[in-house]
Amino acid sequence: MTASDMTIPCFDDVTAARSRIEPHIHRTPVLTSTYFNTLTGAELFFKCENFQKAGVFKARGASNAVFGLSDDMAAKGVATHSSGNHGLSLSYAAGKRGIPATVVMPLTAPDAKKDAVRGYGATVVECEPSTSSREAVFADVVAQTGADFIHPYNDPRVIAGQATCSMELHEDAGPLDAVIAPIGGGGMVSGTCLTLSNISPDTKIYAAEPKNADDAYRSLKAGYIIADDAPDTVADGLKVPLKDLTWHFVSTFVTDILLAKEQEIIDAMYLIWQRMKIVVEPSSAVTLAAILNNKEQFAGKRVGVILTGGNVDLKKLPWMQA
Amino acid sequence: MTASDMTIPCFDDVTAARSRIEPHIHRTPVLTSTYFNTLTGAELFFKCENFQKAGVFKARGASNAVFGLSDDMAAKGVATHSSGNHGLSLSYAAGKRGIPATVVMPLTAPDAKKDAVRGYGATVVECEPSTSSREAVFADVVAQTGADFIHPYNDPRVIAGQATCSMELHEDAGPLDAVIAPIGGGGMVSGTCLTLSNISPDTKIYAAEPKNADDAYRSLKAGYIIADDAPDTVADGLKVPLKDLTWHFVSTFVTDILLAKEQEIIDAMYLIWQRMKIVVEPSSAVTLAAILNNKEQFAGKRVGVILTGGNVDLKKLPWMQA
Repeated sequence: MTASDMTIPCFDDVTAARSRIEPHIHRTPVLTSTYFNTLTGAELFFKCENFQKAGVFKARGASNAVFGLSDDMAAKGVATHSSGNHGLSLSYAAGKRGIPATVVMPLTAPDAKKDAVRGYGATVVECEPSTSSREAVFADVVAQTGADFIHPYNDPRVIAGQATCSMELHEDAGPLDAVIAPIGGGGMVSGTCLTLSNISPDTKIYAAEPKNADDAYRSLKAGYIIADDAPDTVADGLKVPLKDLTWHFVSTFVTDILLAKEQEIIDAMYLIWQRMKIVVEPSSAVTLAAILNNKEQFAGKRVGVILTGGNVDLKKLPWMQA
Repeated sequence: MTASDMTIPCFDDVTAARSRIEPHIHRTPVLTSTYFNTLTGAELFFKCENFQKAGVFKARGASNAVFGLSDDMAAKGVATHSSGNHGLSLSYAAGKRGIPATVVMPLTAPDAKKDAVRGYGATVVECEPSTSSREAVFADVVAQTGADFIHPYNDPRVIAGQATCSMELHEDAGPLDAVIAPIGGGGMVSGTCLTLSNISPDTKIYAAEPKNADDAYRSLKAGYIIADDAPDTVADGLKVPLKDLTWHFVSTFVTDILLAKEQEIIDAMYLIWQRMKIVVEPSSAVTLAAILNNKEQFAGKRVGVILTGGNVDLKKLPWMQA
């Protein structure tokens, strides 16, 4: 058992999350594009979580966890280990509530990411870039502060928070034949399953995954969780493996996991920037790349596409690398 | 006298333009940003014409000109000389109406720009990169086709079209203390003057201009049009001079023209991409740079900021240049 103790969130948790986080997050817009409809033959509805607080959908789950704490618990603060979007989102939410947050990050993480976390008022504690160091340092932080550990995705509070995204999408786009979201640890996909299986059970749920980090794809085919060691992909938010809670949702509700190669992800990201004039990170673009690889599956359908975030280093864009 | 014959458009032309172009353009969103409100001390309302058809506000003026033609006139087509956004926008509008469009472009213009014009079904006719060649080639095109010349900005139909932008901004943002738009030839600023002087005469109108191409600034101070030869700025949409029609509006209604240096424009553009997660071209960012240079003038005010377009070469971003 993990920290989750397999408490599977239910739809009531989603509606509670929605009221709880509403003052702290953006209701992000749903954009359409004639160009992409023509290109894919489908009718696409892009849910723009790149416009979300902290630049990513994870502000939803983090806000739900932080604002759901009792005052006593909250006073001790929250903690996580993450060099990416979850650390940033948890710092945002804790800053909003005015409680301490500690993020354990490897010494080697870029200064810009550490500065962004500190910018929201959180504390960065550095560890060596190894799992053993990270776990030791993190255990130390929790022992000293009594902070609540908010896992990036394998936490029912986090999944219920992410689940609010597809509620908004469903309301704004109307009934959808399918929804596709990128999959890494499976937090967003699990939230999507939780919501749509309740309010729109006929909507098929697809996950999009980099071929270079296709552990969720192989897990779904195998029927059990396969976790790879250190996969490498430009979609750096999608390297982490499924865990028990997210596996529950993925294995129960996901129709298929569709893959995209590195260059396809980069091309799709470039096209989104060029045609939609929005900044999205590579993880977001995996969805469009997967649709383009499977046009026949989506042609003529109304498809929701979750663009998960927009946090990218503008000075190191993937199409500029040699 | 120019092609305009100084027919000054009136507010009825704007309301007519609005109904005429509505089916062919986007009602672009107005975005807000807590970050930029804090940074500037003002309350900013960003009108996102980077999301406009053809990626730029000029789709408004071009559509108004093209769809206002009689069927006889339209059959002969439209023509312009432009290696930038106007050529693209005119091609878009002509393609929408299904009439011929010819764009005279220098041999030296990037292939990507020629391909974009051709992508909308227009014809590119190449000239030498000199004013004399351009004028000779253009005269030839008009003589052969009888096409209607649509000037990029010194045309009452074009100004009335651009004027629809601030109508939408006024409706969506509510009453504004000030509106700021970038100035090159003055088409957008003239349209803004035309609309706001009628529906919101207390709103102050500012123009933002690159210091490296400050001919409009010097014109306003001098009281007559000063046209520079070939100014150089990263905001390549803003190199052209005022003409009689746009000078009329600028000299009558603009409160002030505010300047920004090259690095300030690039920094503002970077900040907009990073914080708002949208792709805007350098010309758009001159507005924010000018506000940051004149914070005291805007502090505590409700300010509309027109982000004019999003057509940029994603492979050559100004902060990547050595």
